[in-house]
Amino acid sequence: MDYPSKLIENAVNEVAKLPGIGKKTALRLVLHLVKEPELKTLALTEALNTLRRQIRFCTTCHNISDEEICSICASARRDRSIICVVEECNDVLAIENTGQFQGVYHVVGGVISPMNGIGPSDLKIESLVQRVSKPSAEVREVILALSPTLEGDTTAFYIHKKLREYPVKVTSIARGVPVGGELEYTDEITLGRSISGRTLFG
Amino acid sequence: MDYPSKLIENAVNEVAKLPGIGKKTALRLVLHLVKEPELKTLALTEALNTLRRQIRFCTTCHNISDEEICSICASARRDRSIICVVEECNDVLAIENTGQFQGVYHVVGGVISPMNGIGPSDLKIESLVQRVSKPSAEVREVILALSPTLEGDTTAFYIHKKLREYPVKVTSIARGVPVGGELEYTDEITLGRSISGRTLFG
Repeated sequence: MDYPSKLIENAVNEVAKLPGIGKKTALRLVLHLVKEPELKTLALTEALNTLRRQIRFCTTCHNISDEEICSICASARRDRSIICVVEECNDVLAIENTGQFQGVYHVVGGVISPMNGIGPSDLKIESLVQRVSKPSAEVREVILALSPTLEGDTTAFYIHKKLREYPVKVTSIARGVPVGGELEYTDEITLGRSISGRTLFG
Repeated sequence: MDYPSKLIENAVNEVAKLPGIGKKTALRLVLHLVKEPELKTLALTEALNTLRRQIRFCTTCHNISDEEICSICASARRDRSIICVVEECNDVLAIENTGQFQGVYHVVGGVISPMNGIGPSDLKIESLVQRVSKPSAEVREVILALSPTLEGDTTAFYIHKKLREYPVKVTSIARGVPVGGELEYTDEITLGRSISGRTLFG
């Protein structure tokens, strides 16, 4: 595409680096900012810069946090004996939104993926092992809530192996037909897992 | 949604002000920036700030431009006797991409919309009339390429009325069934217009 201005081209190229944003969407967003008063652009960029500069992570669970210890880890109402292992911070938000989980989290920060050069040492797995191994922690269960992909499964197996020597139950979230989903539109692997992982009715 | 951090919440709120970006998408984008090195966020915000600070508009056609006169208005190969009137800068890009238009443009900057408090004086209509009325300009035709909405049609009628006293042909881009579109899926108004605006075959 021929942009009418170098400034526009630079801005579009930067915005289009964001995930899920193509050049066309980037152009629409950039032209929107151009039409709006300069203050709006300043508010946006200031919020992003401040976020990136000041963002901190919980030293216990590695979730995003304003304090050294995040509000979930610090809460007296959470069950510290159950740790749910997730890949990213937005997984914590997703599970929190269900209101079904009262334990605490551990954000490993991704999955083992040799193709992308991500090994176990790039993830927060060692710190999970330390949390579990600490006698004062009294962790009873570690729930693995990782992506149902090859990389996610590899990561799950790796964590499982690492935790084998500790007296902790390692579980995985259920895979199956989504609630409201129809059998005929469910892929074979999911349907297969939903059968092998069937539960007692009622 | 409960965000794990005030910083995240602020950034999400700012990003979600962009058109077509909801809170969920905003959160995904913001968390992406948090995962990436700080330099990437700085590059993005710097590009947007520079754009907003330095952006200029062509004094002739009001399109975005790096110079006082945009590259289209300055080009010796463009036919200055035909002016295509569009709403926004991205409409210029869209028409340029067709490669079908050799004239020049006039970006009015929107459409007349009393509901949104936008009157004719908020648009660059007076400057279009001045371009057409200048005897040295020798404008033969003004093509109206505005949105086929109530507001777009109102704006088109207004411009038509304003230009009536000058010896210039005012035309409108063709409305009809899109190329590759199927008749049965075309809405009645478009189909109706495509019949009333039918052209000689061949």
